[in-house]
Amino acid sequence: LDKVMKGRQPTDLMLRCTVLDSEGNVKTISGQFKKSDMCTEHGLNPRDLRKIDSRVPNLVATILVREQAFLVNILHIRALVKADCVILFDTYGSVDSRLHSVFLYHLEHNLKVKGSTSPYEFRALDSILLSVLSALEAEMVFIRNLVGGLLAELEDDIDHDRFKRLLHYSRRLASFQNRAKLVQQAIDEVLEQDEDLDAMYLTDKKNQKERHDHNELEVLLESFSKQVEEIVTEANNIDANVQSTQEIVELILDSNRNSLLALDLKVSIGTMGIGAGALVAGLFGMNLKSTLEESDYAFLGMTILSAVVAAAVSWAGLRRHVMISLVARA
Amino acid sequence: LDKVMKGRQPTDLMLRCTVLDSEGNVKTISGQFKKSDMCTEHGLNPRDLRKIDSRVPNLVATILVREQAFLVNILHIRALVKADCVILFDTYGSVDSRLHSVFLYHLEHNLKVKGSTSPYEFRALDSILLSVLSALEAEMVFIRNLVGGLLAELEDDIDHDRFKRLLHYSRRLASFQNRAKLVQQAIDEVLEQDEDLDAMYLTDKKNQKERHDHNELEVLLESFSKQVEEIVTEANNIDANVQSTQEIVELILDSNRNSLLALDLKVSIGTMGIGAGALVAGLFGMNLKSTLEESDYAFLGMTILSAVVAAAVSWAGLRRHVMISLVARA
Amino acid sequence: LDKVMKGRQPTDLMLRCTVLDSEGNVKTISGQFKKSDMCTEHGLNPRDLRKIDSRVPNLVATILVREQAFLVNILHIRALVKADCVILFDTYGSVDSRLHSVFLYHLEHNLKVKGSTSPYEFRALDSILLSVLSALEAEMVFIRNLVGGLLAELEDDIDHDRFKRLLHYSRRLASFQNRAKLVQQAIDEVLEQDEDLDAMYLTDKKNQKERHDHNELEVLLESFSKQVEEIVTEANNIDANVQSTQEIVELILDSNRNSLLALDLKVSIGTMGIGAGALVAGLFGMNLKSTLEESDYAFLGMTILSAVVAAAVSWAGLRRHVMISLVARA
Amino acid sequence: LDKVMKGRQPTDLMLRCTVLDSEGNVKTISGQFKKSDMCTEHGLNPRDLRKIDSRVPNLVATILVREQAFLVNILHIRALVKADCVILFDTYGSVDSRLHSVFLYHLEHNLKVKGSTSPYEFRALDSILLSVLSALEAEMVFIRNLVGGLLAELEDDIDHDRFKRLLHYSRRLASFQNRAKLVQQAIDEVLEQDEDLDAMYLTDKKNQKERHDHNELEVLLESFSKQVEEIVTEANNIDANVQSTQEIVELILDSNRNSLLALDLKVSIGTMGIGAGALVAGLFGMNLKSTLEESDYAFLGMTILSAVVAAAVSWAGLRRHVMISLVARA
Amino acid sequence: LDKVMKGRQPTDLMLRCTVLDSEGNVKTISGQFKKSDMCTEHGLNPRDLRKIDSRVPNLVATILVREQAFLVNILHIRALVKADCVILFDTYGSVDSRLHSVFLYHLEHNLKVKGSTSPYEFRALDSILLSVLSALEAEMVFIRNLVGGLLAELEDDIDHDRFKRLLHYSRRLASFQNRAKLVQQAIDEVLEQDEDLDAMYLTDKKNQKERHDHNELEVLLESFSKQVEEIVTEANNIDANVQSTQEIVELILDSNRNSLLALDLKVSIGTMGIGAGALVAGLFGMNLKSTLEESDYAFLGMTILSAVVAAAVSWAGLRRHVMISLVARA
Repeated sequence: LDKVMKGRQPTDLMLRCTVLDSEGNVKTISGQFKKSDMCTEHGLNPRDLRKIDSRVPNLVATILVREQAFLVNILHIRALVKADCVILFDTYGSVDSRLHSVFLYHLEHNLKVKGSTSPYEFRALDSILLSVLSALEAEMVFIRNLVGGLLAELEDDIDHDRFKRLLHYSRRLASFQNRAKLVQQAIDEVLEQDEDLDAMYLTDKKNQKERHDHNELEVLLESFSKQVEEIVTEANNIDANVQSTQEIVELILDSNRNSLLALDLKVSIGTMGIGAGALVAGLFGMNLKSTLEESDYAFLGMTILSAVVAAAVSWAGLRRHVMISLVARA
Repeated sequence: LDKVMKGRQPTDLMLRCTVLDSEGNVKTISGQFKKSDMCTEHGLNPRDLRKIDSRVPNLVATILVREQAFLVNILHIRALVKADCVILFDTYGSVDSRLHSVFLYHLEHNLKVKGSTSPYEFRALDSILLSVLSALEAEMVFIRNLVGGLLAELEDDIDHDRFKRLLHYSRRLASFQNRAKLVQQAIDEVLEQDEDLDAMYLTDKKNQKERHDHNELEVLLESFSKQVEEIVTEANNIDANVQSTQEIVELILDSNRNSLLALDLKVSIGTMGIGAGALVAGLFGMNLKSTLEESDYAFLGMTILSAVVAAAVSWAGLRRHVMISLVARA
Repeated sequence: LDKVMKGRQPTDLMLRCTVLDSEGNVKTISGQFKKSDMCTEHGLNPRDLRKIDSRVPNLVATILVREQAFLVNILHIRALVKADCVILFDTYGSVDSRLHSVFLYHLEHNLKVKGSTSPYEFRALDSILLSVLSALEAEMVFIRNLVGGLLAELEDDIDHDRFKRLLHYSRRLASFQNRAKLVQQAIDEVLEQDEDLDAMYLTDKKNQKERHDHNELEVLLESFSKQVEEIVTEANNIDANVQSTQEIVELILDSNRNSLLALDLKVSIGTMGIGAGALVAGLFGMNLKSTLEESDYAFLGMTILSAVVAAAVSWAGLRRHVMISLVARA
Repeated sequence: LDKVMKGRQPTDLMLRCTVLDSEGNVKTISGQFKKSDMCTEHGLNPRDLRKIDSRVPNLVATILVREQAFLVNILHIRALVKADCVILFDTYGSVDSRLHSVFLYHLEHNLKVKGSTSPYEFRALDSILLSVLSALEAEMVFIRNLVGGLLAELEDDIDHDRFKRLLHYSRRLASFQNRAKLVQQAIDEVLEQDEDLDAMYLTDKKNQKERHDHNELEVLLESFSKQVEEIVTEANNIDANVQSTQEIVELILDSNRNSLLALDLKVSIGTMGIGAGALVAGLFGMNLKSTLEESDYAFLGMTILSAVVAAAVSWAGLRRHVMISLVARA
Repeated sequence: LDKVMKGRQPTDLMLRCTVLDSEGNVKTISGQFKKSDMCTEHGLNPRDLRKIDSRVPNLVATILVREQAFLVNILHIRALVKADCVILFDTYGSVDSRLHSVFLYHLEHNLKVKGSTSPYEFRALDSILLSVLSALEAEMVFIRNLVGGLLAELEDDIDHDRFKRLLHYSRRLASFQNRAKLVQQAIDEVLEQDEDLDAMYLTDKKNQKERHDHNELEVLLESFSKQVEEIVTEANNIDANVQSTQEIVELILDSNRNSLLALDLKVSIGTMGIGAGALVAGLFGMNLKSTLEESDYAFLGMTILSAVVAAAVSWAGLRRHVMISLVARA
């Protein structure tokens, strides 16, 4: 606990960042910066950097709007966007370096575009949100295939290993759903606050233009919000599918169990009938005379006959059982 | 992932559209248009066309209001409505061509009406929403019959194949519920924003009339919203029915299982009793004298007797079992 | 599908209505009126009559406020209320004619009251809402008794037929809950919109009095809203009871099953024990000498003994089983 | 149905009330008053008295603010508070007379306090809400103990009677949760409406003081709202405990059932093995020579041996079974 | 009940508090103060101290803003913050004294900081919220490890004791989730009310500065709110994991049960077959001649043979059973 509280003291003073300048060129790659310098330089509160700095991955996505910059902290991206530069913070153990380099390439390209009508900061935001969207979509497609395949398998054959896989997939799905919802929430939170939208026109603020119409930014954010909503909706659909499949599989298992029990009951009844016959036979049988006593082959024949009867009865029962199982798995 | 990001570059520049002019006549059928031309001509942002252009079916329905037009993207319809023309975008692999031609016929007819009090764009919107509503209603009736029939069958006879069908139907129902809800949401979103409602009076805007009363549009949209709500409500009802049927079927299966087990237990007890008798008989039986030893027909009689006893006991047990099954399925 | 779309054309031009004049007297009973005439006469949009006209029962309740009238479409009542007349639309196959005649009697009586402080239209609305409330209450009492009785029975004896009844009752309950909620929602929707409340003072509008205080109407609607809320709350309570009973019944069934299995296991163990004894006996038994071989009554005695042992063991087992069943159903 | 509608006619004209005057003294105990007189005297609408008058207990709690008074109708308390008197309506068959007399004592005492800064009506309201809170708290403690004890028992020993008690308790809990929520909702509804808060300063209104600051009342109501919220939260916690216990108990029952079945299977296998041995023995056994045939004690010994074997095998099986049951109940 | 009502009388007049002065020094440790003195000194209403005073732990977290102070009552912390002093109320039986002393150390340190831009009261609030956050985080980590470990165990081996632990853990998780949500709610409630935010600038109020910009406080509270949201989100994730694991474990148990039953059925069928054979053998067997009758070793051989057959059949069956169990637990 001490550690938790002390960990909040500014002990980790350095941050690793990649900086892009106003032309869209990468100025520094993974350079080390002092946290306190960053705060003074970009007009930030040390509290703002707390989350970016933390080693644990963030669940809750945030877009924080400050005086001269806004901080985007969504999924794998932790960025500080200003009117003339973009600072990307390195996440510790960032998993997907390919995702990151595609993002960086796209960001550079987008920032270099000349004669664009969008200001610098919106082009950066566009790239960031596009990268987030791509990551979400890629994961969604992956999970959809995984889960879809498993559910199709489960329809054909209910078995034990598949349930374990289902458990892992549905955990993963739940965590994905959650992340996607939090991304949408973060975007919608900004959309709902007019002051924040205004404050994000950093270039205009720098040039001391007054603005009251934030249509462009709204359209940009709304468009992404809708696309993330699409992903959230699809994830919810997959989840609903998993749920209903689980419920139906349980019903099928129950119904199969009843079939098994019904057959078992028939077998028990048969066994009891045979047992009753055997009791009667036992009481009288062997002291009675039959004409077979003197036959030499009678013993051999009887042995074979009883083996055949045992086998035939078992075979008939098992065939029935196999058919039920086939139906159950069909 | 590269593909995802590159796929967003304007590589697919052509869109296939059907255009209706201000008289309601079809000017072009499935003509090809450049995406960039469309944007300039109709004052759109390339981002607006992203969703319309995409090959995947859209889950989230949207009505986007822009300067000189509004974009409707609901279910099978992707349309751009202006004050003097309607552009229908072809959806790739549009499933129900009949639905589409009925819609086109109705739209033409509606736009040609002379002396209507409604402006051009609202008549177009009315046709579009009516087509959406018809599609929803048709699907709802279809699903209601499908599910209703299956639930009635399940009440009479619980079996395994029906559960599989139930799974497929309830997935379909869930997806339908979802789509209907998203349509209602899209309409309500427009209804909630007064600016959007104002901006949809395209003819007035074109003629540079000022408007502040958007009563007509509100009534139009509210009417459709209510009708979609009716469909959503009914879909929810069907869903609730499916849920409660599943729960009760599970209880019935459980209760049947207990009956089967109770009978099985009785049979087991009977078998044990018979076994105990057989043990006693086995210990003493055959070395005791009975007056039957010398009878010639005793052996034959005993064989028949034990067969009859076995058959009688089995038959009594099975009859009981059959009756339970009948009750269980009644 | 064509039909759906054509069905929306004004093909059914006639409506059957009962009209009450400004004195509260019934002017026409089930008279036929042209739809288009009605629209012009009462300043309605044809779209407003769509729902009233439809043959299918409406799920979603609505109160539509128009220029000179308001349309109430709740449960069995479809009425157009003006400042000086009330038009009741006949619903096709209206189920409960008694309910209707009580309503009509009450409405007439209420409209005839002289010197009331309430304007004409509010007295009509009061009667309408009262009839709706009575219908809801009557149904609620009916369902409560039905479900309450069944749940009490289920506590005493869990059986299969009761589950089927439970299924039907809970479907009915769900549909009732839904209808009641939609009625409350319709009333609350009007309450939330000040313009609608203002616009419902039809008499004042007719006399061209300006109004800004809609206290009386608010109190009237709030009072009904609260009473419907009471019904919704009670329906929810019943539903919660059904849910928890289902859950507990499932637990009881599970627990009984375990008891049955435990007893079955004991029986199986006993049978195995006896079987093992029989095997030993079978190996040696009959070739051993006992002093009973020569006794004449030994065979008869042994037959009786084994029958008694079989019966005693079975009886002991079954008694145990019966006791478990009794406990299970107690 | 007629009755329902007629029951709403002013047939029950008398109300039984207890009246406290401006000094806090009880003026009348259970006096009879005409309903119509009350309405005129206190400026009420007959509709306002409908709920108070009704014989059925109210589920939905309400605080109605009128011109010169407010009506409180929460749980066991139905009161009309004015600037200079409090009228308590007798509830038919009011269950807990002790609760009532404590309330009356506290109310009298509170109203008599001299020199209080709070106006008369707030002191009355304070007493009323305090009594409501006490009743809720008392019931909550009672239910918590009841349910807590049962859940602890269920952890130790899962049995059938406990499930029935659980059913009754969880119904009671659900109804309590519901009531508590409705009380909180009634308080919050008043808190949300500034006009109502203003209108409740009855003394100031009587003295024709204008008021715009309703801080005191807000703090009073908020404080009670928070305390009711605390109760609601705890009731929800208990409910969640019941839910998770039910789920886990079901898992435990399932898991025990599997153990029972696994043991049963082993027994069945053993029985089959023994049966196979017996078949072989049956085919050959008794016609073979053993050296025991001539021994006089062999028969007795064999009888004892087979009894011992049967007992030993059964004992071994049962011991295993008992151990599983012990584990299952531990 | 009397007690409840009397318990609300001001009988417990003393409160134990720790006081820190404007320099951040501890002035009094666990000193006794009169409740009425405190109210007069700090301008509080006796009602405000009710919750702080109560011996039961509070579930609902609150931040109450008053004239010259605000009261924070969250989890283990009950504090009164003024512009120049902080009063910490001792909670009876405060569990974690270590947590408390770390908090006190941090608070002292934070209040002593010279030249801070934040006013005194915000530095106190920061320390308080930080301590709350640490406590939540510590508990979250603890529960996550507990539950995570158990779920991993359950995947490998489903057993009975683990379910009991799961029950305890999930109760604890639910209570934790609840507490965390209530903390977030308390912070958000303050954030939503601009007046409260204004009123919390105690130093400015004392110096009679007017303020209308409460940016600093908003950023402080939002930052904590986000961090608590993160914790709530993670707790929800864990809960979802528990839920899906329970569901899947139930499916696995069901599926295993079906496997057991299927094998059991096979064994029963085998037993019936053998029984049928034994019946035939019983009818004829022993009176037939075989060539083995005269062999001296035949008896011994047959005994051994039947033992071997019994053992072999049992062994084959059990091996199958063991394999199923292994699969089931794998």
